[in-house]
Parts: sequence; C-alpha cells; structure tokens
Amino acid sequence: MSTPEVKAARRAKFNGVFEKIRDELIEHFAAQGMPKEAVEWYRNSLNYNVPGGKLNRGMSVVDTVEILKGRELTDEEYFKSAVLGWCIELLQAYFLVADDMMDGSITRRGQPCWYKIPEVNLIAINDSFMLEGAIYHLLKTHFRSEKYYADLLDVFHDTTYQTQMGQLVDLITAPEDHVDLSKFSLERHRLIVVYKTAYYSFYLPVACALLVCHIPESYTAGNEIVKPFEVSSSILIPLGEYFQIQDDFLDYSGTPEQIGKIGTDIIDNKCSWVVNTAIRLATPAQRKVLDENYGRKDAQKEQVVKALYEEIGIRKVYAEYEEKVVGELNAKIDQIVEVPGGLKKAVFQSFLGKIYKRSK
Amino acid sequence: MSTPEVKAARRAKFNGVFEKIRDELIEHFAAQGMPKEAVEWYRNSLNYNVPGGKLNRGMSVVDTVEILKGRELTDEEYFKSAVLGWCIELLQAYFLVADDMMDGSITRRGQPCWYKIPEVNLIAINDSFMLEGAIYHLLKTHFRSEKYYADLLDVFHDTTYQTQMGQLVDLITAPEDHVDLSKFSLERHRLIVVYKTAYYSFYLPVACALLVCHIPESYTAGNEIVKPFEVSSSILIPLGEYFQIQDDFLDYSGTPEQIGKIGTDIIDNKCSWVVNTAIRLATPAQRKVLDENYGRKDAQKEQVVKALYEEIGIRKVYAEYEEKVVGELNAKIDQIVEVPGGLKKAVFQSFLGKIYKRSK
Repeated sequence: MSTPEVKAARRAKFNGVFEKIRDELIEHFAAQGMPKEAVEWYRNSLNYNVPGGKLNRGMSVVDTVEILKGRELTDEEYFKSAVLGWCIELLQAYFLVADDMMDGSITRRGQPCWYKIPEVNLIAINDSFMLEGAIYHLLKTHFRSEKYYADLLDVFHDTTYQTQMGQLVDLITAPEDHVDLSKFSLERHRLIVVYKTAYYSFYLPVACALLVCHIPESYTAGNEIVKPFEVSSSILIPLGEYFQIQDDFLDYSGTPEQIGKIGTDIIDNKCSWVVNTAIRLATPAQRKVLDENYGRKDAQKEQVVKALYEEIGIRKVYAEYEEKVVGELNAKIDQIVEVPGGLKKAVFQSFLGKIYKRSK
Repeated sequence: MSTPEVKAARRAKFNGVFEKIRDELIEHFAAQGMPKEAVEWYRNSLNYNVPGGKLNRGMSVVDTVEILKGRELTDEEYFKSAVLGWCIELLQAYFLVADDMMDGSITRRGQPCWYKIPEVNLIAINDSFMLEGAIYHLLKTHFRSEKYYADLLDVFHDTTYQTQMGQLVDLITAPEDHVDLSKFSLERHRLIVVYKTAYYSFYLPVACALLVCHIPESYTAGNEIVKPFEVSSSILIPLGEYFQIQDDFLDYSGTPEQIGKIGTDIIDNKCSWVVNTAIRLATPAQRKVLDENYGRKDAQKEQVVKALYEEIGIRKVYAEYEEKVVGELNAKIDQIVEVPGGLKKAVFQSFLGKIYKRSK
C-alpha cells in the first residue's frame, strides 16, 4: 500500500509520458504537411479525450511489469511500459468517444462529451477512428524491432474486436428507449461484461506486460507446463466480471460522494447485474413491477424499482457474491507455482487488492 | 482487354470468396457464444455494407498478383489474394458507413445508407468498427504464419491512419453547411485526395500483392537498387490523385446515364478539383460569383456556378491536365527495369488502362 503522495507522484510520472506521446503523434501528423487547423484539431481531440480518466488500465501495465521484474524499472523499461499503458488509454478513449454518441450521453469525466461540442458533432466519429489509429502508429514507432511485435498487434486486435462484439450485444440488448426485460438475464449480462469490459480492461494490460517482460508463451514450473497468457486470462476475465458487477452495484448503492456521480442505470434501462439479479429472484408479481417501472424516465418509477431491490435483499445477495468470487479468485491465484522469469501471484493480488471492497 | 463475359466470371469468382470469409466471420462470432440476434445483426451488416460496390480495389489485388506471377494462380494463391482484396473492401466499407453518417448522406450503391435504416441508426458506428475489426481477424486467420505478417499489418495500419487524416482535413475544409472558399485550394485538394483516397485505393492493393508474391523490400536491377514499395507509391499516389480528379470532373461533366447518379458536388460544397481549378483561374469578379453561389442548396445558384465553369473553360483545362498527367505516369512506368521476381510495368499499365478516359 502506498501513501497518497507516492500515488500522486506515480500518476504524475505516467502523465508525463502522455505529453511525450501526444507531441510525437502531433509532430508526425504535422510532418505529413497537414494544415495548421487540422493539427490543432487533432491536438485538441487528444488532450480532451485521452488523459483525465482514472488511468487504472494504463498504469496497470507499469505496475505489472514492475511486479514481474521484481525491481524498479530503468528509464527505458518504464517508458516502454508506459507507452503500452497509454495505448490502452487510447483504446479506451476510442471506445468512449463512440459509446457516448451511441448512448446519447451528455457528460464524461465532468466535462461535455466530445461530440457534444457544437463544432465537433459527428466529426467525433472520425476523431474516435484516429484515436485508434494512433495506437498502431505508436506501437510501430516503439516496438517494431521487438520479437514480440506481431504478438503485441494480435493482442490489441483481438481485444478490440472482442470489445466491439460486447458493445454490439449491449446495444441490441438494452436500447435506452425500448424496455424489454425478457432480453435480460445474468448469462447475457456476463457475456456483455466479459466482452465489452474485461478483455481490454484487465487481460490486455497484463498481456502487454508479459510481452514486454519476454515471459515465454509456455514454460515448466514443477511438474507442470504453464501457459502464462491462459492462466492470466482465466483469472483476469472473472476478475473483470467481478469489477463490473461491483460497478453496477455501486451505481445503485453508492452515494454521490462515493462514486462522484448519481447512478442512472435504472432510468437508463441498463443491463446491470442488479436488475438481472432481481429478475432471477423475483416472484411473478415482483417481475410485473419491474416490467412496469424499469428503464422509464420517471423518478417515481425509479423509486419503485429501488424499493423492490431492497425487498429482494439485493445488498445481501451482492455481499455473498463478493465473498464467493473473491474466495474463488484467491484460490486460483494460490495455485500459481512461481519460477524465476515466470508469472507471479502478486500480479493478480495487486489487481484484486485494488478492487476488493472498493467504494468508489 | 477482356470480354464482358470474362469480366463477369472474374467478378463472380471474387464474390464467391466473399461468401466464404463472411461465413468464417459469422461462425467465429457465433462460436464465442454470441446470441442469435447479434449473429443475425452482424451477418446483415456484412451483407449490406461489404459487397455490391465496384470492387475495383479488392479485385486489383488479384489482378496485380497475376501480373507479378505472370501466370494463372493456383487455387490457394487465388484465395489468399482474394482474402486480401476483401480486407480492402472491408476497410472501404468501414470508411463509407462512417463517412455517410458524417456527410449526412441518404443513399449509397442504390440503397439507403446503413445508418438510415431506423433500427440501425447510431449503432452503425459500432458496426463500422466491427467491419474494421473483421480485417485483422481475417489477416490473423490466413496470414499469421507468413514471414510478411507484420509488414502486412503495418501497411493496413498505415493506410488506415492516412485515410483518417485525409477525412479529418476534408471534414474541416468543406463542412456541408458552411461555405468558405478561402479554405479551398488545389494544394488542399491534393492533400485530401492523396490521404483520403489514393493510399488505400491504389497503394494498399499493390503493397498487399507485393507482399503475397514475396517481392523483396529492395533488389538490384541493372546497376540500380530498386525499392519496389517506394516505386509503387511514387506511381500509384499520383495515379490515385488523377483518378479522383477525374471523378470530380465526371461529377460535373458526366451524364446520369454515364455515372449512374446526379452530380451534387456544387450543391454539397465539396472541395472538388473543379471548384479549386475555377478558384485558381477566376478573375476577382468571377470569384465573387463563386463565393455567392457555391455550396448552396439552390438549383439556380448551381446553374450559375456551372455557367461559370464553362466560361472558365474547365473542360479544356481538364483535358490538358489529363494528357499531361498520363504522359508523366507513362514516363515513370517506362523507367522501371524489369528483372525476374521483381516489379513489372504491366502492374501500373493495367491500373492506368482502367482509368484513362473512363466515362463512368
């Protein structure tokens, strides 16, 4: 556990790398002979959409590389890890700019969504494309000569496609303007969460770290053949699912002081773990109440749904779920046999420690 | 020159490969446990957006591979070349679905634009993402074990990013609803055309063909070191510029019977070669007429602009431009020294032959 000062310094150092890669992207763009207004436009898009988030995904690449190496990183090691971290933040920015348009969202990170800026509007679609395009320019610049370059591109492509798949299922399962709870289920929720969030938020940072650290695709530990990418995925995908379930639960149970926003999942017809659990446990009469009140732009109906959640005992169900999944994750992590140059339990313990019982 | 029957058969064979890769994409998607509605959605998006175009870009990969090999292709060679061709068609579909949204277009290839289908609407943004995602899934499936795999990914990434850059410059230079001819110039036009069209439409297919044919990055011909990718680019980029200038000219001069649509560049405030040439040649009085009449949703003002184009003698200017550029391109092509296993003049002569004096 590090002090707030140490955390702030780590964050500042990571943000310093953003400035470098942003300038690198802008210089490359300008060097193609692009007009000044276009250069300014791209700079604004990068500054507006990429930094300013929680940076959990990006910084977890650096954290994981440090754990795997078991020592402080050299400047070059730090920089390369941070570039990969920022590539994940760029990927996230690409998704969020577009998701906000598709969801009709108004604000993001305390400012208007990018497409909500009048001059931007639909140009935000192309801006989201360029945020993704920037990733591959950076990877080529900084990793082209590495043996693992093709693997790195593959893992970015795979997780990007998986995220797009999850987004499609989410969009057709829970359109904001058409409530149909018969489409919802805990299985559907799991599918959406795993594809839309877990792969890029949890698996991708660790896969990047494994590649940067040259951890082999498979190795022997004790009598076992270990496939570290598969082991990581088998822990990080359920961990990502847990993270999103917690997020869904906090949207309902968290105070605005805790979560920094007012939860709107009920009003927005979100395919949340909370409503799916309620559907699973509801009596026919309770289900009727849900059908009639969920996903409506109506504060009173929202209150009816909230009362139903309490009636069903959602807080207890969540607490039991959390203890169970954390127990299972710890058991999986404990099975890892550590050998020099291989996976370490601490990688996953670190993720779990940041998530368990978080209230924001 | 081939007969219409031969052309139709070539097209049918190429379309046959689309069915295969579409089914492959759908099966992979379904195999992830995606719900039936999502599978149907993706199938519809692929069928609606990918085939049905002119297929010039996609088929030119196959044509180029045949020319480079100087013989009929084996089934496997044909299939791999055609997969790359369809990847370029997927790239084009990804751009067009999004461009139509940003341009507010109504129809594309004789049917409503994808986003214009009421159930689709903004989900088209994610659908465009998935059309791009499909490219890298296909490349991984069919080319992962090739030595040139990373080069192939690089050339797709580079041209994608270049196209996005060109689209940004186009969007901020010529917004449909705000006319400002002071932003226009032939230099700006050239930049937009090269980045937005030439790289992905002309350079990318040939670069794919060079990679599939294992043409080396550089080789000796006579006393010279030849860099075939650079030579190709040095011919295909001006050739792509010529193609787009011709397209712009046909939008103005072509009859609906020739071009299969009614030209709307004047009304739509397009940064076309025609208006940029008029701007270059206009007297101050003529420029005033342009400023007052270009880009307005008004058929009479469109007629005023058309009359001005005739006054300026745009047809003659175009004819002179065409003869000049074709002469320059032929001179460049003639400089190629052919050696076995290297570039061939016929690659570029084939492109030029399809374009020169086309009327549709």
